[in-house]
Order: sequence, then C-alpha cells, then structure tokens
Amino acid sequence: MTAKEQNKSIDTRYDFTHAPERRGSASVKWDVGEGELPMWIADMDFATAPEIIKQMRHKLDLGAFGYEEPGEAYFNAVADWYDNEHHARPETDWMLFATGVVPAISSIVRRVGHVGDNVLVTAPVYNIFYNSIENNGRHVLSSDLVYHDGAYDLDFDDLEAKLAEPLTTLMVFCNPHNPTGKVWTREELERVAQLCAKHHVVMLSDEIHGDLVLSGPDYTPAFSLSPEARSQVISLVSPSKTFNVAALHAATAIIPDSSLRAQVNRGLNSDEVAEPNLLALDGTIAAYAQGREWVAALRRQLRANRDHARAFIGTRIEGLRVVESAATYLMWIDASGVISEAPGKPGVESGYNPGSDALAATIREQTGLILSSGSIYRGNGSDFLRLNFACPPDMLDDGLERLERGVRSFKQTQ
Amino acid sequence: MTAKEQNKSIDTRYDFTHAPERRGSASVKWDVGEGELPMWIADMDFATAPEIIKQMRHKLDLGAFGYEEPGEAYFNAVADWYDNEHHARPETDWMLFATGVVPAISSIVRRVGHVGDNVLVTAPVYNIFYNSIENNGRHVLSSDLVYHDGAYDLDFDDLEAKLAEPLTTLMVFCNPHNPTGKVWTREELERVAQLCAKHHVVMLSDEIHGDLVLSGPDYTPAFSLSPEARSQVISLVSPSKTFNVAALHAATAIIPDSSLRAQVNRGLNSDEVAEPNLLALDGTIAAYAQGREWVAALRRQLRANRDHARAFIGTRIEGLRVVESAATYLMWIDASGVISEAPGKPGVESGYNPGSDALAATIREQTGLILSSGSIYRGNGSDFLRLNFACPPDMLDDGLERLERGVRSFKQTQ
Repeated sequence: MTAKEQNKSIDTRYDFTHAPERRGSASVKWDVGEGELPMWIADMDFATAPEIIKQMRHKLDLGAFGYEEPGEAYFNAVADWYDNEHHARPETDWMLFATGVVPAISSIVRRVGHVGDNVLVTAPVYNIFYNSIENNGRHVLSSDLVYHDGAYDLDFDDLEAKLAEPLTTLMVFCNPHNPTGKVWTREELERVAQLCAKHHVVMLSDEIHGDLVLSGPDYTPAFSLSPEARSQVISLVSPSKTFNVAALHAATAIIPDSSLRAQVNRGLNSDEVAEPNLLALDGTIAAYAQGREWVAALRRQLRANRDHARAFIGTRIEGLRVVESAATYLMWIDASGVISEAPGKPGVESGYNPGSDALAATIREQTGLILSSGSIYRGNGSDFLRLNFACPPDMLDDGLERLERGVRSFKQTQ
Repeated sequence: MTAKEQNKSIDTRYDFTHAPERRGSASVKWDVGEGELPMWIADMDFATAPEIIKQMRHKLDLGAFGYEEPGEAYFNAVADWYDNEHHARPETDWMLFATGVVPAISSIVRRVGHVGDNVLVTAPVYNIFYNSIENNGRHVLSSDLVYHDGAYDLDFDDLEAKLAEPLTTLMVFCNPHNPTGKVWTREELERVAQLCAKHHVVMLSDEIHGDLVLSGPDYTPAFSLSPEARSQVISLVSPSKTFNVAALHAATAIIPDSSLRAQVNRGLNSDEVAEPNLLALDGTIAAYAQGREWVAALRRQLRANRDHARAFIGTRIEGLRVVESAATYLMWIDASGVISEAPGKPGVESGYNPGSDALAATIREQTGLILSSGSIYRGNGSDFLRLNFACPPDMLDDGLERLERGVRSFKQTQ
C-alpha cells in the first residue's frame, strides 16, 4: 500500500495532500535542480493553518506598518498555548520576544559567558548550533549521545564531567532532540537542569519541535521544571516548525529567573533581534489561539507518514535502519549497514570512511532526492541520513522510491 | 487657511487624508495615553502604497512560509529603483540583504574595527547611531555640525582631524541627514568619502531617507561616488521610511568593494540579520517596481505639510525657528528663543539649562502632543524639538495648535 492509499483513512478538515508550488519562489528548500526532490531542510511541504493566513490578511488591512512591540495579547497567547497543549503555564513576565530561535541562540551565546568558553552540546545535534557557537568565538564541547540498539541516550557521567569544566558556561540542549526525534522524560530533563545549576552553567533548551510529539508522553518545557532546576534555564519556543512559518521570524524566550532574563534581554536588543515584523505578532497569536485543531490534524498526518516511511524502509531497503523516534518530522536513518557493506568501496580498502556524505551524494546524483548527510550533525552522524517526511503522501512515495533506487545504486557502484 | 483646506488643491490618486487607526494595536508610536498625539517616532500616519499590500496578499496565497533567500528578482528591483529614481545604478552583486538599516549598522559596527575604537558621527544625528556604537563597546567621536543662521554645515577641518585619529575606524554618516533634513551635495559627499578613504576609515552611509527629498537637488547615493571615493563605502537603503513599512524588516547594503562586502556579509550572517521574513522580499519588490507614483504623491503631500507647518510656526509661535530642510518628514525646530526667554525659569537663574527636555515635557503634559526632545541627538540638540509631519492635514493642524498652546504654557509656567 502506498502512502497515498493509506492516507485515505485519515479524517481531517485540512488538506495535507497538496504541496504549495514553491519551485521558482524565494524558498531555500526548493532552490534545486529540475526533477530534484528536496527532503532535507526542515520546513514542511504543507500550507500553514488557514486560520493564520486569515489573521495575516486581516493585519494587512491596517495599512500602516511602523515599529511594533509585543504586548499582553502576544504573551498571553503564548502562555495559553503552553497551558492548553503542554499543561504548563509560564508567567507572561518571564517572556521575551525574539525574531527566531536561531537568532536568540546566537545572541545568548554572545551574552552568556565569554569568547573562549565552552558551550556544551549533545552530538549528534542540530548543525546550526555549531555555527552559533563557533562563529562567536566559543568552543563546542560535546557530551555525545550513546547509541546502542537503534536508540540514543545521555551519558550522565560524561555530561557532568563536561559541565564541571571551569570554562563550560552554557549548554545548548535540543528538547525534543533533532535529528534523533528523541523526547526526553521529565526526569531526564530535571537531572540535566540540576547538573547545570550545580555547575553554574546556563541551560538553553531549544524547544522548537515541542509541539510535534507524535507518540508517547509529551515533551517537558524546561521552564516547567522544579524552581531549583529552572533557576538558570532558558526555554526557546516558536510556532516556526509547528505551523510551517519559519519565515514568520517569531520566537519567545521563556526565562523564569529575572537576572538571567535581564541579561538575555540586553543581548537580544543590542543584537537587533528583539523587534517583531509586521506579521510576527498577529501570526503567532492566530497560531496559538486558533491553531489547535490544525496541529492535531497535522500530527495525525505526520504519524501516518512516519509509520509508512518506516515500514517501507524496513521491508524494502536492506541495510537501512530507522531510529525509533517520538517527535519531529525528521527521520534519522542508520545507514551503516549500507556504507560498510558496499562492495569494492575504495573507502573501506583504504581505511577511509566517506560515510553518509558519499551516500547522500550518490542518492542525489542518481535519483535527485536530496537528504541531509548525517555528518553535519557530528557525533556518530556520518553513519546516518536525515529525511524530512513532512509532505503529501504522493511526494513521500516518490521520495521513498528514489531512496530505494539510490541505495541500490550506491551498493552497485561503490 | 488650515492644512486641511490647503490640501484640497493636491491632486492625487491616493488617500493621504485618513490615518490608519493604530491606537490599541502593537504600534510603538501609538502606545500613548488617551488624547495624546504622537509626532515623534519616525513612522508615518499614512497607509502604505496599495500596490504593496496587494502583492503581500498575493504572497500569503502561497501558504507555506519556510526559509527564504533573496534572488535576482529582489536585487534587480533595488537596482532598477536607484536607476529610475536616482539615476545611479548599483551592480546587483554589490548588494546584501539585511533585516533593517539599524540591524545592519549594529552588525557593521561589530564587524568593522574593534572594541575600543572610535566611530565618527556628525551630531546632532539620529540617536540610535549612539546605541549601535556604544552598546558594542566602541566610542562615539563627533565632528559636530556647525550651526549658523538657521542652517547646518560640516566642518571639514575638524572632520579630517577626527578621521585621522588612529583609533577611528568607521564613520556613520546620515545621508540625507536626520534630524536636520539636510541633503548633502555630491561634492560634499565625495569630499567626505575621499577623506575616509585617505584615512582608512570605512564610511557607512545611512540612506534610509534618500527617497524623501522634497525640494532642491536629489540626494547622492554613496555607492555612486567616484571609484576612488567609494572604495570603502557602504550605502544602506530600505523601503522602510519611503513606504512606511518599518516593520517589513527589509534593507539592502550596497558595497562596491568586494573585500569589504565579504566582511560585512560574514557579520550579517553571524548576527542572524541576513534572512528575509515571508513578506520582506515580495513587499520590497512591489514597492520598488510599482511604487513610484505613490511616492511622488507622498512627496507632494509631505511638501504641502512641511510648508504649512513652517508657515504656521513662523507666523503663530514666537520664539520657534524652523531649520530650512530639503528632505525627510521630520521638522527640526530651533526652540532656543523659547527656552532662553522663558521668564522666571529656574534653570536660567541657577545656570542650569533644562533645554528641550523640559520644553517637550511641558508640551506633552499640557497638550498631549509628543515631540522628540532634541537632546537625544546630542550636538546642539538640546535647543531643539523634532516634529514628524507625516500625517493627514487634520492631524497636523491638531498638532500645530497643541504646539502653540504648549509653548505658550511653557513660557507662562517657567
């Protein structure tokens, strides 16, 4: 059964069967060659919730688009969303507006600690963290996730040792985790935050995928941890991934501690990433106030896509193993079976492992399917591929068939 | 004759007689008390060009708002605008997108030179320049404009001496000049740029008001200077002021020299102010491709408003003198006659001059009219008020009457 056939059983008021035509637009994702199919960059090939577009249109009626600042309507919408969706209500005065999660990360990296400090991450992890850290003169220190039997875990002993290093001043944590799709338990998150507090390390929790938990228990917002644990915690949230509005440029930093908040606030303002554009406030308010049903339908579609892709890969493509994941629309695929078994591969003979870069390059070259090579996420990523399955079932089927052909081609030509 | 009566003679297809109702919205300008009238923050109380709103609506039809990047359509629109409007065509590969002129200034301050360096300005000047410089650990060094007989000029000897200081690495020039409304001649601009080049100082030219020259010769884009003079020049342009779209968050850095451009490009990207939001590209393209007639009509309205306000102040308010200005919708009003002549003013007796802060505070308190106190622009600004006259004639009349009452009140109570 194809993804398209399976999809008929999904009951939804919203249309997840047609991708907006973005080829030839300013879209980064769709700036690709003819016939190529991009399943790498993390935006979705679905139109956003119609409720958001309606409110955006309404904003355009105003006509005058001078300087804006977020007010109670915005912060209350954020608080209500976390209350309703995640059963954790942040205080509105804990919140700061930012033009995006990544701009906020970069600004916080600059503002917390100093040039030359260590910033702790858990590799493999979202590659842009490395840019934010290294572009600002800090060092990446990774407590690599431990991979065994197709799943990832934290190594708490290693984590604590690295948090205890005198020059470790900040940890950037991915919650839920990209690219593995792991949802940390409340206990794990509490333990990480307690260790950060113990060693006077600020814990930045990137929660951009928090609304996209597809199975199992919900994620835990870091701001909702115990008062002790959250004393040095920053939650970064945004409608960006949830509603496919990366270019809305809207995010919220939620910081329970007032001193840390003041510090971050100065940074966001000095770095000019604290002012909303003309749609950022209204778009976010509409998303959070009116978007629940759309997101519920989206999650059903993503769950169906994920299960279909997992089944397809499991039955049709030998040598690939999908890492079990509870969140995000990103599939983390262990390709070590393909990479290591490729016959006649010069890399194996010479002792050099070209890894996922070579595999991703072959797949693109032979089939036009563009996946992220796992190497950019560091850690053990060079054995992995990342596939974005947030697209109509038709397109997913196309992508999976290309993946099958691409892997076959890689095995034959290496 | 009131501004409203005068306005009947203006032939226009566009409506400049109604202000969009922004009270209670997220507008910073209109976040004021009941009955207060804000004529300070530099955005206009006119709806933007309908052609822009139409194109924005069209963009919303796309539905999916993932990551975007500017392409040839954007850069060509910028080049065409400068070619058509200002008879100077920049190369498209000289251009970098930025989320605003101020974010670009802050980023360039950080990227050019080092902490502790001097950044040269010509006070009185746009107050946010001081934030961008001082928040990033640089020193403001001003070659104050010379004020005589109601007009401002550069002091080239002083300017050169300050450019020659070893730690002066950057000059931030306002072209046309805010708050005085001065349009520099090509010869003056060439001379400033030549001096910068001679002393190895990068010249950043803020040209956000370049499209709003209301009388006399057009302004000169710095990128259009002689190859020698423009070797270390950055022009920052934007539809922001021209089309009343500050919250569009779109600007362009035009940098003829490839090394300087590469340096600025790294800064804009590291500082996360290089990516367009979902309306920035389409909004700018529409403005530049379809906005000429609207801007021509706007300039007619602004000219009428300026002349009316100048005549009103000249005939009705003794002690105020309007500085002759050729550009911007900001009126720079010399209030030294009021401040120094106020009878019984404690400041005069005690030798302390409360200056424009006290005058602006009294006007707001007594009439609700909010003007910018000139002191924030430094230089000789504490003798001045800045009035934003970009509003419907009705509102302007209201403002001018309040100003008259406020000044009278100040004279009586001091």
